[in-house]
This record gives sequence, structure tokens and C-alpha cells, in this order.
Amino acid sequence: MILKKQALQKHEEWAGKIGISCKAPINTREELSIAYTPGVAEPCMAIAEDTTLSYTYTGRGNLVAVITDGTAVLGLGDIGPEAGMPVMEGKCALFKTFAGIDAIPLCIRSKNVDEIINTVRLLSGSFGGINLEDISAPRCFEIEQRLKEECDIPVFHDDQHGTAVVTLAAMLNALKIVNKDIRDIEVIVNGSGAAGIAITKLLMHMGLKKVIQCDRTGAIYAGRNYLNKEKTEIAKISNLQMKKGKLSDVIKGADVFIGVSAPDALTEDDVRSMAVDPIIFAMANPTPEIMPDVALHAGARIVGTGRSDFPNQINNVLAFPGIFRGALDCRASDINNEMKIAAAKAIAGIIKPDELHEDYIIPDVFDKRVATYVAYAVAEAARMTGVARK
Amino acid sequence: MILKKQALQKHEEWAGKIGISCKAPINTREELSIAYTPGVAEPCMAIAEDTTLSYTYTGRGNLVAVITDGTAVLGLGDIGPEAGMPVMEGKCALFKTFAGIDAIPLCIRSKNVDEIINTVRLLSGSFGGINLEDISAPRCFEIEQRLKEECDIPVFHDDQHGTAVVTLAAMLNALKIVNKDIRDIEVIVNGSGAAGIAITKLLMHMGLKKVIQCDRTGAIYAGRNYLNKEKTEIAKISNLQMKKGKLSDVIKGADVFIGVSAPDALTEDDVRSMAVDPIIFAMANPTPEIMPDVALHAGARIVGTGRSDFPNQINNVLAFPGIFRGALDCRASDINNEMKIAAAKAIAGIIKPDELHEDYIIPDVFDKRVATYVAYAVAEAARMTGVARK
Repeated sequence: MILKKQALQKHEEWAGKIGISCKAPINTREELSIAYTPGVAEPCMAIAEDTTLSYTYTGRGNLVAVITDGTAVLGLGDIGPEAGMPVMEGKCALFKTFAGIDAIPLCIRSKNVDEIINTVRLLSGSFGGINLEDISAPRCFEIEQRLKEECDIPVFHDDQHGTAVVTLAAMLNALKIVNKDIRDIEVIVNGSGAAGIAITKLLMHMGLKKVIQCDRTGAIYAGRNYLNKEKTEIAKISNLQMKKGKLSDVIKGADVFIGVSAPDALTEDDVRSMAVDPIIFAMANPTPEIMPDVALHAGARIVGTGRSDFPNQINNVLAFPGIFRGALDCRASDINNEMKIAAAKAIAGIIKPDELHEDYIIPDVFDKRVATYVAYAVAEAARMTGVARK
Repeated sequence: MILKKQALQKHEEWAGKIGISCKAPINTREELSIAYTPGVAEPCMAIAEDTTLSYTYTGRGNLVAVITDGTAVLGLGDIGPEAGMPVMEGKCALFKTFAGIDAIPLCIRSKNVDEIINTVRLLSGSFGGINLEDISAPRCFEIEQRLKEECDIPVFHDDQHGTAVVTLAAMLNALKIVNKDIRDIEVIVNGSGAAGIAITKLLMHMGLKKVIQCDRTGAIYAGRNYLNKEKTEIAKISNLQMKKGKLSDVIKGADVFIGVSAPDALTEDDVRSMAVDPIIFAMANPTPEIMPDVALHAGARIVGTGRSDFPNQINNVLAFPGIFRGALDCRASDINNEMKIAAAKAIAGIIKPDELHEDYIIPDVFDKRVATYVAYAVAEAARMTGVARK
């Protein structure tokens, strides 16, 4: 209650969590003639001859657009473009605070996939990268996919890939504690929105063999009813054992539960039915799929949530600032799977083997080292995969 | 030469003339939970219920987008969207420096009028106002007009109206010196691009009876050949005497010459043929229609140019920061003619009667009072004309 009041009050006081600062002094005629006419004609002409010089003479190389249509804001749903803007501004504030990136919030007054794609595509010459945010599934998949194809700068839907990267980071460290090999484990991904789909795809790309994705109906398998385009795709690459049934059926014997679904989706009995040393990431916000104390009581070895008031907070802010920092630093044309995996490994690697324990599998969100480590690893992966342009 | 080198060097050093500053501190868990999740949900929900609260809880009320398609950048022409960005960034730097307005530069990768309009329209929920910049005529007229109709925030094409406002301000003061009544004078507007058309329209709105607009062919009059849509419009409202002929024909007996055309468009003989006490605004950049010393030698009483190295610099920076400051302050839905005229009078009024002389008809661009005076007058005019929303 106090937090709610304080949040409103502070937002009114700020009247915008970010502002513009002027790096070029304009206090004399001479300064004006350098930053503006007639001097400004020089960088203009240089860029006209070679568009890549826009990275040298304008702020583009450190500029990310944070874009939403307001259709899936936090857990609030479709609240409209303007109403999504406090989150977008918050994201921009995080970009600046954690990685020194200039980010500007933009909301689009349309829910039409083509209109959204066109708008972003036509603006892409203004930025070094595009962070899509809080766009509802399954529209977000097509929007991101087509923008990745049509833009020559990295396009990254954080609700998908940021979450996938941080989840993978937590899982890598959790597996070290329980001493299981990632290639052998069985993972249940519960929830098939933006995050769930992206997590499964990234895990499959990591070479996991036994991943089962569930939606409200239960396990997704090839040929099941009620599969949209993305779920059909998921059915092709995951659950090759073709397990069928509800979550409580297919979770039996699983090593890891990843929840990006809804409060109370996981029961004590579900945890009890898992393999030895269950790993539970219950990331529904603000109420997890199962409360940590309940999960631990039922035998979970390691529990992570999205919340800051429990250990092991699996929070995107560990990923996106460093990922974009790295992509911008090497002027990447894309943020590909190898870069995401590199980011996850970098996040996990922050915690030294002797520091690692059940309540510390993922760095603190304020750990200043994270963004730098991630940026370095991401830029390296970009170079290795040929998408770095500098 | 030195300036050119210095301009490139400085632009590289800045790597963007503007940057993002973070107004919300995010150094502790508590701060994170207020600026971002879960606290940020509160302003989101408030705005979802009442969209106008986006002016209270986000930066929208102080945010202007500076938008170009790169088709008419400075005097360089169609150099492409990315190449226009140094100018857009410069404009944003001026907005901040002169009026404390947060402005972000956006370039659109399209020359298609409908695509540009759609892009801007769909983004308009992100901003408090839109400044169109360096878009070629005659496309700029349709783009601005339709955006004004389709957006609920002010849309202002500065190349048109900023120039018109500052020109009118200079003319108001010049007329005081020569002691002529604005309702009686004959004005030649030479050049029929964005600025020329807007100047004539504003003068006609001021109640002038004798304004003749010229293009390369000569005087524009109803029924003439080679008239595009805007010139046909201009022919209807101006040159009601139906004067025909070249500039050198129709300028005979005129009181004021306003040039927004090309170097050396005006001759000594032209000046000599004008009425007593000729007023010459030769604003072609960087080389005026006639050089000030030449014009004075030919009998001009008052000469203004766009250049900072001569007296009477007629520069848009005197207008747009204060105009937007005023429009944002009263949350205007539009920037109408009354607001523009109020701005012109405020700029002119900065110079007290006893300070006024032939070499000081317009305030210095660094006169700190200008933006404040203009903002106040513009907001008042917005209230009087019913477009203020606060």
C-alpha cells in the first residue's frame, strides 16, 4: 500500500524517469556554428556518402529504442500504448544505469502486426538497436522475426530472450550444485507465452534432449489440438518422446521446472514427483507458481523466483543491459542464439565455484560486474559468429 | 576550412550531441521497486484509466520528437534519413539549451507521404509535440496538414512556420523604424518552398493586402502556368492585384523584400526600384539574395539575413524553442496562426522602442529572455483560441 502510493508520487515528481542531456555546448556564436549551421553540414555530407558514418558522427551507436504497443504490459495485459510508457521509461532508466546506454521509449498506437513492423522498420535508421517490450504473444513472435529480417540493426524482444538468458544462467549454476549434466536432464517449461517459447527454443539450441513445454491444456506434442503457429513449431523441436497429459502427469521424474505461467500452477505433489534434487524456477509475478518455502518443504533442492524478497531472483535486468552493450560495442547486425548463450554463461560465471550454493545461483541485480562481463562475452560471440561489424 | 574540420572533429568527439539522463535513482532494491516492477504498475494502471495522466506520470509533457525524412536537409537537399540526423540532433540540443525541452531525433526511411504520416501518427502517443524538419516541398505541406488533423498533439514544421514567425518579428520592428503601417505595405516574398509559402500565408492572415509571391518563373497569380497545389492556393489568397512578370518587374514600388530563395536573386537595380526606405530580408543560406553592403549601397534602409556575421540575423532559434515551450506548458492541441503571430510579436517586443535601430530589429539569438517571452505569449494565445488543455 505504501509502495503503491510512493510509486505514484515519485512518478509524478519525476514527470519522466529519463530526460535529455545536451553534450554539445551552445553558448556562443562559434559553438552554435559548430553544433548547428553551418558546421553541421560537414557530418551530414560525410554520412550521405557513407551511411555507416552515422555511427561516428551521431549518437546512433549508443542508442536503443524501447518499443511497445501496450498489449502485454507487466501482468496487466492490454492496457494501451500510453499506459505502457512508465514501464518503457523504466527500461530506459535501467539501460542507462546498468550499461550507460541511451534508450528512448516509444509506444505505437496500433495492434496491427504489419503497422507495427512498418513503423519500427522505417525508424530503424535512427538507432543502434531495438528492444521490443510487452507486446502480446503470439503477435510478438511474428513482429520480432520479421523485424530481424528487415532491419540491419539488432532487434531483441526482451520478454522472450532476456528471460530465457537469465533462466538459462540460473539453470547452469543450479546444475553445478546438483551435479547433473545439462545434456541428460529433463526440463518442464510451463507457460507458452513469449518467455516460455523463447526458453524452450534456447534450451533446444543448447542441445538438451528432453524438454517438455506445457500450456494450460498440458504438454505440447506434435499433432495435439489447439496449437498456434509457435506451439506447432515447439512441438516439432521439443518433447520428442511425445509425452502427453497435464503438467502433473508429465512432470513426474523431471529434473527442472521452469514456470513462466500463473500463480499456484505447481503443487507440492508435483515437486514430490520429480527426480532427485528438484530445481524449481517459479517466475510468475508477483505470485510464483509455488511459494519457495512450500517448494522446499516438498523436497525442492533449489528454488528461484522473479521476486526480490526471496533468494535467487531471476531478473531480466541481469541480461538486457549487457547484451545490448555488447551488441552495440561491436556494432552487431543481430543478437543471435550464440550471443544469448554467451550472455547466460557470463552471468552464471560471475559466481565462483566456492561461492555457489542453493541460495546463490544467480548474481544480485546490483552486481556491477554483470553488465560488463555479459557485454564482453556477447561481443566475442558476435565476432565468432560473423555478425560483428566493428 | 577550419570550421569544417572542427565540426567533424567535434561531432566525432560527441558521438551524439544529446544523450539520455536518468532522473529516477536505481541504486537499491527499494528504488528499483518504485521506478520499475512492481511499483511501476501503479502509474501504468492510472494512465490506462485516463490517458491524459500520461502527462503527469511520464515525460510526455516535456517531450518533442524532431522528425525528418532527410529530403531537404539544410541547403544540401535529399541526402537521406541518416545523413539528416546531425541536424536533428542539433535541433534537439537547441530545444534543450534554449527552452529546457527534451527532444529526440527520429529519421524515417521513406519518402512516401502516406508512410511518413502513418509512422508519425502511430508514434504520437509517445510525445507532447512533433517538430517536422527538413522535409522537401511540396510533400511537407500535405504531411504537416494531415498530421495536424490526425494527431491530438501540436505538429509544427519549423522550416515553414519557424521561419515565418521570425521573419514577421523582424518585419514588425523594421516597419516601426520606417514608420509604415503593416496594413498598407506591399511585400514581395521571393521563393516558394516551405518557408516562402508559410510566410505569405502568415502575412495574409495578419491582414496584409498587397503580398506578391514569386517563384523562379516570377509572380504567382491565379491562372498562371506551372502552379502546384500550394501555389494555386497562394494565388487565391495573395497578389489580388494580379501583377504579372518577373521579380524585377513586380518589385517596383514594393516596401519589403523577403527572400527565401537563392544567392544573388536580388539586384541593386531591384532595390533602387522599390518604394522609399526599402526593407530587405535576404535569407538564402549561406549566400544571401543580395549582400548587405550592396543592398545598403543601393538604398536599402534595413537589411536582415540568416547569417550570424551580419546585423539582424533572422534565425528560427528565436522562435521554435519558445513556441514549443508555450504549447507544452498549456498542453495545446495545436499550434495555430494566432499562436505564431503572438510569438512574432513577443520576439519583436523584446527590443524596446529606444533600443530599436536599423542594425537591431531582431534580438540576438543568445538573448535569454526570448524563449520565456515567446512561451508566455504563445500559451496565452492558445488559451484565447481554445486549444489549451491546461
